[in-house]
Amino acid sequence: MKRLAVFTSGGDAPGMNACIRAVVRGAVYHGVEVFGIRRGYNGMINGDIFPMTSHSVSNIVQRGGTILKSARSKEFMTPEGRQKAHDQLIKHGIEGLVAIGGNGTFTGALKFFEEYQIPTVGAPGTIDNDLYGTDYTIGFDTAVNTALEAIDKIRDTADSHDRIFFIEVMGRDSGYIAIQSGIAGGAEMVMVPEVLTPISEVVETLKQGWSRSKSSSIIIVAEGDEEGNAAEVAEKIRSQVGVDVDMRVTTLGHIQRGGIPTAYDRILASRLGLGALEGLLNGEKNVMAGVVNNQLLYTPFIDTIKLPKPINEDLLRMVRILSV
Amino acid sequence: MKRLAVFTSGGDAPGMNACIRAVVRGAVYHGVEVFGIRRGYNGMINGDIFPMTSHSVSNIVQRGGTILKSARSKEFMTPEGRQKAHDQLIKHGIEGLVAIGGNGTFTGALKFFEEYQIPTVGAPGTIDNDLYGTDYTIGFDTAVNTALEAIDKIRDTADSHDRIFFIEVMGRDSGYIAIQSGIAGGAEMVMVPEVLTPISEVVETLKQGWSRSKSSSIIIVAEGDEEGNAAEVAEKIRSQVGVDVDMRVTTLGHIQRGGIPTAYDRILASRLGLGALEGLLNGEKNVMAGVVNNQLLYTPFIDTIKLPKPINEDLLRMVRILSV
Amino acid sequence: MKRLAVFTSGGDAPGMNACIRAVVRGAVYHGVEVFGIRRGYNGMINGDIFPMTSHSVSNIVQRGGTILKSARSKEFMTPEGRQKAHDQLIKHGIEGLVAIGGNGTFTGALKFFEEYQIPTVGAPGTIDNDLYGTDYTIGFDTAVNTALEAIDKIRDTADSHDRIFFIEVMGRDSGYIAIQSGIAGGAEMVMVPEVLTPISEVVETLKQGWSRSKSSSIIIVAEGDEEGNAAEVAEKIRSQVGVDVDMRVTTLGHIQRGGIPTAYDRILASRLGLGALEGLLNGEKNVMAGVVNNQLLYTPFIDTIKLPKPINEDLLRMVRILSV
Amino acid sequence: MKRLAVFTSGGDAPGMNACIRAVVRGAVYHGVEVFGIRRGYNGMINGDIFPMTSHSVSNIVQRGGTILKSARSKEFMTPEGRQKAHDQLIKHGIEGLVAIGGNGTFTGALKFFEEYQIPTVGAPGTIDNDLYGTDYTIGFDTAVNTALEAIDKIRDTADSHDRIFFIEVMGRDSGYIAIQSGIAGGAEMVMVPEVLTPISEVVETLKQGWSRSKSSSIIIVAEGDEEGNAAEVAEKIRSQVGVDVDMRVTTLGHIQRGGIPTAYDRILASRLGLGALEGLLNGEKNVMAGVVNNQLLYTPFIDTIKLPKPINEDLLRMVRILSV
Repeated sequence: MKRLAVFTSGGDAPGMNACIRAVVRGAVYHGVEVFGIRRGYNGMINGDIFPMTSHSVSNIVQRGGTILKSARSKEFMTPEGRQKAHDQLIKHGIEGLVAIGGNGTFTGALKFFEEYQIPTVGAPGTIDNDLYGTDYTIGFDTAVNTALEAIDKIRDTADSHDRIFFIEVMGRDSGYIAIQSGIAGGAEMVMVPEVLTPISEVVETLKQGWSRSKSSSIIIVAEGDEEGNAAEVAEKIRSQVGVDVDMRVTTLGHIQRGGIPTAYDRILASRLGLGALEGLLNGEKNVMAGVVNNQLLYTPFIDTIKLPKPINEDLLRMVRILSV
Repeated sequence: MKRLAVFTSGGDAPGMNACIRAVVRGAVYHGVEVFGIRRGYNGMINGDIFPMTSHSVSNIVQRGGTILKSARSKEFMTPEGRQKAHDQLIKHGIEGLVAIGGNGTFTGALKFFEEYQIPTVGAPGTIDNDLYGTDYTIGFDTAVNTALEAIDKIRDTADSHDRIFFIEVMGRDSGYIAIQSGIAGGAEMVMVPEVLTPISEVVETLKQGWSRSKSSSIIIVAEGDEEGNAAEVAEKIRSQVGVDVDMRVTTLGHIQRGGIPTAYDRILASRLGLGALEGLLNGEKNVMAGVVNNQLLYTPFIDTIKLPKPINEDLLRMVRILSV
Repeated sequence: MKRLAVFTSGGDAPGMNACIRAVVRGAVYHGVEVFGIRRGYNGMINGDIFPMTSHSVSNIVQRGGTILKSARSKEFMTPEGRQKAHDQLIKHGIEGLVAIGGNGTFTGALKFFEEYQIPTVGAPGTIDNDLYGTDYTIGFDTAVNTALEAIDKIRDTADSHDRIFFIEVMGRDSGYIAIQSGIAGGAEMVMVPEVLTPISEVVETLKQGWSRSKSSSIIIVAEGDEEGNAAEVAEKIRSQVGVDVDMRVTTLGHIQRGGIPTAYDRILASRLGLGALEGLLNGEKNVMAGVVNNQLLYTPFIDTIKLPKPINEDLLRMVRILSV
Repeated sequence: MKRLAVFTSGGDAPGMNACIRAVVRGAVYHGVEVFGIRRGYNGMINGDIFPMTSHSVSNIVQRGGTILKSARSKEFMTPEGRQKAHDQLIKHGIEGLVAIGGNGTFTGALKFFEEYQIPTVGAPGTIDNDLYGTDYTIGFDTAVNTALEAIDKIRDTADSHDRIFFIEVMGRDSGYIAIQSGIAGGAEMVMVPEVLTPISEVVETLKQGWSRSKSSSIIIVAEGDEEGNAAEVAEKIRSQVGVDVDMRVTTLGHIQRGGIPTAYDRILASRLGLGALEGLLNGEKNVMAGVVNNQLLYTPFIDTIKLPKPINEDLLRMVRILSV
């Protein structure tokens, strides 16, 4: 392979720039030409493709977001869109792709390969950590630390006013951010999509805390919890504990997507970017580079897309023990 | 005066602990006994009053929230409540008070003085910076920096996706947090309660930005803006710019109240705490210590309560110029 | 004036980018052409001069350092150097300058004006806050907060081990960073160039602390203190208190120059950049824009260079009271 | 086992408080009495031992340092010291110990067991990550992020002035902090004790960078590097590259020990604290709880003390590739 391209797709995640940098510098190191594509599959379709050098990625390792920008592309879901994308790649002489993104991105790459045989190796970039085939995804550690900083701040005010706070964190289908930020933040409870926590159990835990004169409490709710979002959960609880309990709801929202990446995310992103690049050069295709038990390995897209990533039940047990 | 007490009241603000520390250490330095009262006027009523020493305030200068806890007290608004509070102060031999809080706190202190002649000197503790008689209030600088960090993170993701973000910051009656975080965060517009910004003007600014290929925009909305909260403003704008513009809304919420205080807030809080204490010892009463043009001065509660604090129109002008 | 240029010179300071942005956007707003000069007077001499637009300064308000780079220029101190610089300005049609820097920068500008009548308006960019004519300089608030974060971290370990720490902060001729970070950090003592603190007084304070069972202490030493740097001060004290006291020295160093600027610095920098630009357009020359008592004003370079900026003795008194 | 005690020993590390909390709450959960010992083995000898409850560890999960304080104990190295320590444990009815610390701590525990058969289970608390038997130690992730923040700040000023910076990080025998902060910080080179990097290779790398017009460079030096500390390395290099290169040296020092622990460290510390406690309750003794490949496991003290922890050579390779 003499020329390849890199792009970011789907929701942005802190560390994507460190990953792009590793792909580009790895290509330079191995003597391969490397191009960047802007705005994911949309840029591929529109020919927003440009050559990158070692200098193109100077001083970006610490930046949040993605210098290649990202987008979700409806047009790439159509045969016509993929045809245009292929034409552009041919025009630029690009023989392989490194795709930084999540399952939507990899699904597109797989379809594209079936039709045009352009090999793609993926790197898992999403704050949700919901991808099978890697212990952690790029951006997850930063998102957890961002949520944690917010929890630390809210605990100050919760303690000062003897309040109960319901804090909603990101995670439509996955409770990873909720569990990790909850344990680290010393939360009394964590409610996640993977495990049903009945409202009655939350009420029971709150009442036990009050009986031990615990005056303030923090409950973390993943946005995709079965009992509803944080506001809905708080409403259900209020109806059972009475109106004189001071309860507040806060939704952390988009701050969890941005920010300067942590050391962990920059190193993971560098490792996965380099791993994806070297995998592509070594003939891998339609696989995602991941780190499992500290080892770099490649998992077929078909598995990352289909297989669920189980939540660590030991961590849920820890939440209960540590809030006694 | 041989014995006095300090308390925090109303919404908590970062720097309150530094202020408590300055009151306590100042009292020790001047050889006066000092007591702490927990949970504001509620603790005064319930006798939650305890002696403090230099050691009581060790290692708190950097902590958010308030070690004395805070509350709003309905009971203190009644003659019976104030009677109980007075009985407790007499019982503990307390001859004067330092009250860290806002206008609600000072209104109570004034009423209390009229009835029982216990002198109070106040220190302005509120993140909103809406108190006449001081350039800045304790907690404001930290709240602005917290909002700013969130804006910086959101800009990462706004840029990566070419989105318009409406970010709601605190400020029911005051646009100070909005303006300062907006200028510092490079926002395209800032909407504040003090000045009407018509929706049509926001739409015009956005369109001008697009004509200069500005792909992402950030608009800061103070929660008390006349056009509504951030979600309502966004809805009104969407109806004018069309559905294909990618707009998001995020409300920063309670994180703005907590957090490690900045250097500015710790120094201001120390200065105001010491100033309030020394004012009280020098016979001041029913006044708030403030810093205006770098000078410590005392403003009667009656003025801080009644007089409005004007917004700096020069700063609003700066927002417009800097977003060209 | 139809065309002007902006540059940064001397040591870099956080907020310089926000200042550059305000100059450039202000020029665009007022319909004046604006150029950037790289590496201060060196770039002026070498013709490293380029046109800037509103877009040139997108997304830099939050960045530390200076996108125009900075340098100290020996060549500009020679008549030949200034001749070359003038030739370059003429060549580019530049009629006025905004210089962001300190006294060295302004001294050069004054000499340059005497010879070539090119007017310059300055903006005070230095972390040391040692410039007469402004309450605060660009970068000072960030430097204080950076020093403070370090002090907070060191207090954790000092407390855990019952240690005395001597922390050296920047300030060759000025104790501003030392005093402000010392008060905010809850330091037991602060040693500054402006006021002699004899070693015997430090020893006395430490002994008093031990008598009150204060087990750990933090002493802030400005690098330019008369008793020597932190290591020298510690050595002198060790000889008086004995070897079994656990003392450590740490020098914060260059981290104080960098980092994301605080809200305060970004707003101050924006205000001073716009103020310098508008001053220049209004005919000001050889003056520095400053903010004194919240008012923008212009001080002749000759005064900022010659007049000393006194330290606030009230703040030194506060250090003593707050460490009782 | 009905009663056990927990203590911290050796250098403090961020996350130790989260670990103490997990031991205490775990004991409460399992219905076992738990005591705290202050200042490590010194407190054991002096009887500074006190009962802890769930409430004793409220609101400490986010604090740096250790609420139990730490110390190195010479007296515990003597038979008389250990005799006194044993007497105190007997007096308080303590049957087992959880020791949070490093190899010095575990060596003492082993000796103590040989003489008095008091079982100890350890948790690895040290920022250096130099303990065999766990992938990461408590405090390492925070220390790396602290070093990284400093590197990010220094890069701002290095870039602005086209300078070469030599940054010394902690690690007397171990290059872990250097390598991880170096990769994450985008350093040009990393010099570690485990691998000899000759000065000539550093000079060569710098020259290659200059030939690609790289104007600023950052070189991370672990304090225990064979070529000397950062100042010595810089001196050797200066003699080869000439005096006109602008080189600076900065030593990060004790800030690396303190600070608010990261999410990773709090979770790891919680897991290891609970793991150590439950190990002790299940009959483990003279072992350290560790997490290897995401699994909790116990390694005999004799192995953690004797076996070396190899550096990851893949990461060193990454430094070279990413700085092309």
